[in-house]
Amino acid sequence: MSQYFSRRNLNFLLYEVFNVPALNQLPHFEAHDRETFDMALDAMTKVADTHMYPYTKEVDRNQPELKDGKVTVHPKVGDYIKAMGDAGLIGAEFLFENGGQQMPQTVGAVLGFIAMAANNGMMYTGLSAGAADLIATFGSDELKAKYIEKMLNGKWQGTMALTEPQAGSSLSDITTTAYPSENGAYSIKGQKVFISAGDHDQCENIIHLMLARIEGAPKGTKGVSLFVVPKYRVAEDGTFADNDVTSTGVYHKLGQKGVPAMHLTMGDADNCHGWLVGEPHKGLSYMFRMMNGARIGVGMTGAAIASAAYGASLQYAKERPQSRRLNEKNQLDAPQTPIINHPDVKRMLLHQKAVVEGSLSLLIETARFADLAHASEGDDKEKYDLLLDIMTPVAKTFPCEMGMQAVSNGLQVFGGYGFTEDFPLEQYYRDIRITPIYEGTTGIQAQDLLGRKMTMKGGKAPQLLFAEIAQVIADAQTHDELKPYAKMLQAELARAQDVLMTLMPYAMKGEIERFLMDATLFLEMFGYTLVAWQWLKQATVAKHALLTQNPEGDELAFYEAKVHTMKYFFHYEVPKNLGLAARLKDTEVLTIVTEKELAL
Amino acid sequence: MSQYFSRRNLNFLLYEVFNVPALNQLPHFEAHDRETFDMALDAMTKVADTHMYPYTKEVDRNQPELKDGKVTVHPKVGDYIKAMGDAGLIGAEFLFENGGQQMPQTVGAVLGFIAMAANNGMMYTGLSAGAADLIATFGSDELKAKYIEKMLNGKWQGTMALTEPQAGSSLSDITTTAYPSENGAYSIKGQKVFISAGDHDQCENIIHLMLARIEGAPKGTKGVSLFVVPKYRVAEDGTFADNDVTSTGVYHKLGQKGVPAMHLTMGDADNCHGWLVGEPHKGLSYMFRMMNGARIGVGMTGAAIASAAYGASLQYAKERPQSRRLNEKNQLDAPQTPIINHPDVKRMLLHQKAVVEGSLSLLIETARFADLAHASEGDDKEKYDLLLDIMTPVAKTFPCEMGMQAVSNGLQVFGGYGFTEDFPLEQYYRDIRITPIYEGTTGIQAQDLLGRKMTMKGGKAPQLLFAEIAQVIADAQTHDELKPYAKMLQAELARAQDVLMTLMPYAMKGEIERFLMDATLFLEMFGYTLVAWQWLKQATVAKHALLTQNPEGDELAFYEAKVHTMKYFFHYEVPKNLGLAARLKDTEVLTIVTEKELAL
Repeated sequence: MSQYFSRRNLNFLLYEVFNVPALNQLPHFEAHDRETFDMALDAMTKVADTHMYPYTKEVDRNQPELKDGKVTVHPKVGDYIKAMGDAGLIGAEFLFENGGQQMPQTVGAVLGFIAMAANNGMMYTGLSAGAADLIATFGSDELKAKYIEKMLNGKWQGTMALTEPQAGSSLSDITTTAYPSENGAYSIKGQKVFISAGDHDQCENIIHLMLARIEGAPKGTKGVSLFVVPKYRVAEDGTFADNDVTSTGVYHKLGQKGVPAMHLTMGDADNCHGWLVGEPHKGLSYMFRMMNGARIGVGMTGAAIASAAYGASLQYAKERPQSRRLNEKNQLDAPQTPIINHPDVKRMLLHQKAVVEGSLSLLIETARFADLAHASEGDDKEKYDLLLDIMTPVAKTFPCEMGMQAVSNGLQVFGGYGFTEDFPLEQYYRDIRITPIYEGTTGIQAQDLLGRKMTMKGGKAPQLLFAEIAQVIADAQTHDELKPYAKMLQAELARAQDVLMTLMPYAMKGEIERFLMDATLFLEMFGYTLVAWQWLKQATVAKHALLTQNPEGDELAFYEAKVHTMKYFFHYEVPKNLGLAARLKDTEVLTIVTEKELAL
Repeated sequence: MSQYFSRRNLNFLLYEVFNVPALNQLPHFEAHDRETFDMALDAMTKVADTHMYPYTKEVDRNQPELKDGKVTVHPKVGDYIKAMGDAGLIGAEFLFENGGQQMPQTVGAVLGFIAMAANNGMMYTGLSAGAADLIATFGSDELKAKYIEKMLNGKWQGTMALTEPQAGSSLSDITTTAYPSENGAYSIKGQKVFISAGDHDQCENIIHLMLARIEGAPKGTKGVSLFVVPKYRVAEDGTFADNDVTSTGVYHKLGQKGVPAMHLTMGDADNCHGWLVGEPHKGLSYMFRMMNGARIGVGMTGAAIASAAYGASLQYAKERPQSRRLNEKNQLDAPQTPIINHPDVKRMLLHQKAVVEGSLSLLIETARFADLAHASEGDDKEKYDLLLDIMTPVAKTFPCEMGMQAVSNGLQVFGGYGFTEDFPLEQYYRDIRITPIYEGTTGIQAQDLLGRKMTMKGGKAPQLLFAEIAQVIADAQTHDELKPYAKMLQAELARAQDVLMTLMPYAMKGEIERFLMDATLFLEMFGYTLVAWQWLKQATVAKHALLTQNPEGDELAFYEAKVHTMKYFFHYEVPKNLGLAARLKDTEVLTIVTEKELAL
């Protein structure tokens, strides 16, 4: 079995690069140290090895089916959900008082990484945690008492029910309606689509955290409220009553086939009850407070699928003999060489490693900012909230977009075999394709980064971020071997600022469409810069270890590969910013609607 | 139904840009003119509309199955093969004396484009034509008489049987063996894998054009011979006898599911006969003489799938309302706008159009060089052969690699719906992934371009090619609007030469691995340059038409969109060469094996 993730690399990032146990200096995390983190990582690995990874292909090949109103999924799904609940992994990040372990999000995100690398078709428990978190943060004591425990122990499934047929990227156009009803409940009517884990037979109940508009609410995002809408209403004595949430259809998808994406209809029999979470009309703001975490989770999924693809293609490249080396083409008596020895294959493997480990580092950094913001106060809180805000669109997008390229390279390493179902690459290639779409498409993330995060509070977020990067540049300059890379990263910061100087005047003039027309390219460029920062950070730590610890064998090789892969990233990936910046500074407008229709 | 290809665009390329009917000044093509070409295009479109496009999804969802040694495929496959044979489309390019229409390859390649855009899971007849072509070109009169007619009328299926489990990219390692036997036949023993259409129930017989090594032949490529190995041996009276070619397995694949990729075993019962094509030990050189055409065919498949994806996503973008324009975000009473009006979506559509129509132009240019080489003599023949040789790796790779990106953009335009089986994008995304693998992977094409085509005959091929490009630059400069683009293309030629100056010394010193280590990046860079050339050529023709023909309505819009898309390509795609060239000139070596193993 190929290695779907590297624990050595996780330890390097969590303990050597980011010193995550130091979070316990904050009262919120004081119960934790490396030992508790290792126990959680071990527990997650055990569940992943036992209940998830072995069923990757099987769960993909046996898709959820809707029959007579019931959705059947692979029975192994139930085993994995139970194991996650029993091990306390669903609620790892929840407060002790809510039955959680009060783990940092940094560690929680890494647990998610392991799970998604093992089997990203088993994404059920992450959804339950996200839904329960909304109740825990914004819900009444009654809602908390009723739902959280069962969602965290895996008995009940949670979902995020946002999307409607006419409202995908545009959540302000939601029309599902909540009518005030008896006992403080609301009567819900409407349709939702693409609700992941929106119905299945491996949990006793399904708890939807659903956006809807209270009758008569204002138009737009300011009239959207958040409700708990269960599949079954639960009486005081625990008995279930059908809540009129009908499974109208299950989407058959390109990938992530293990989890049903449901089309749901609420209130066909005027008997669907929902309970308001928090205050009316604040649903979208609640959702957005949770969104950073959800987006880090999707970024982790991209990195995780790319990690599993890297492990599989690396193993194949070491074992598969094909052709001789280019300098020895005519030595026909010589045996064929393992394909890892061909520079083009090595390049594709280095790309994968650079994307996987660079993305992971970026995501852990982002989650750490979330923890620091969560557990701090005053100026510190503001600082880390801003850093979290500016990092999130990149941390969501880079691992997914570049992860797709990495997985495609992994498939290419297999040649024709990569295209067959005999190897896992074709599945990873299908699975990862959703990640740049959900939790906000790449285009939406790009508008968020350039249109909001770069400019809010007078541009304070990029200022803080650039100061963080400057620190890494300064650290790297203590090593001669790293100096050229520190200089290159400095140049990338200047490039980003130069591009912003070109674009900002459009924002100031109110030409928003012009300002944002190439936001996706800006996001791509900024992604290379931030991941270069993470690679320089990793290489500096590795270099320090090489000089101070005298490592040998595998450890020596591990640290040397870190420095080598950093170089790969700067020499092969960062130069792409030349073309991106050239385009971003280019004044030719080609994509904005003019009166004269373009005949596409 | 969305438009899977644009006939208007094909007419533009064939008649306005390339003036293909002028080929009839060569005696070989004297029977042809625009009328005969249009008839062939009409016939192909009719077969595609009737027998291919309507079954795209159905053929994908009902994969070939192997049961009791028999391979069953979708019955519509038989209808389409028959229709293609009846219309004379399988043999369009064959000599009159072989029952063909002696069409230019330029037109033949375009017919293939239409077919693959309609349903690339129905690639059976292209394989038959390729196999029959080998017999027609190199086979004895006896072989011709026996096989060609039935392969061209669709009664029998032809295949190319090259790959073996241990010999994919490395054909010199083929071990299937041919033992001399009675009556001039050989007894064949061995295994072949990934043989497309290698067995099925919709033709009476399967004729494999198979590479094998005659017992005792020299090692390497110089010991490989070409054989005809039928599924059934055919007696004088037409009766069939089993030829001991066993269907051992059928690969289940990510895409192109309509056509079986077979694992075949020959000679298990010592009763498999093969007949030598041409002379012994020349099999690979015969294959390579056909390879340019086959590679153009794969490039066309990439362009064709991207064309169908573009048509579908364009239609969706025009019809799907979502959000308001960025300058009108807060006008909540306004209806949502069709997503084509969002700059990011327009950009993704322009990318698709630029890739599809730029690739088509490049492929038609390449096929035209093949026709000119085929029908010319002396210096002209040498010139066009060299141009064909240098163009082929780019014409194979760009449409496939950039086609993948285009299809992915098409899927992204659909948002979450693109990930579902309710729309065709997920299928196109799966289908196109094989194209950078078969008929020589991108890595192999890159070695061919930089390692062979750039240097052969003292670098004469790039000289000739640059002269062709210079002519287009000169033509474009007659229009003020195009002058900046002519200048940009000139700069790209200089960039390519600059990179070559950096790399060539390694070749001269015999450091082949160093010379070729980033060949794939060179191929990518050269691809942008050649497609920029094709776009400038198209824009010049369009500009001329706008100035001289006073077009109105759709015609006006058509020509204006050509100029607009050319600009898109130069402003968004060509700048990628900045980063590619920077890397190619960079002296840091990171992918060549050193004594110290890299811990990946």
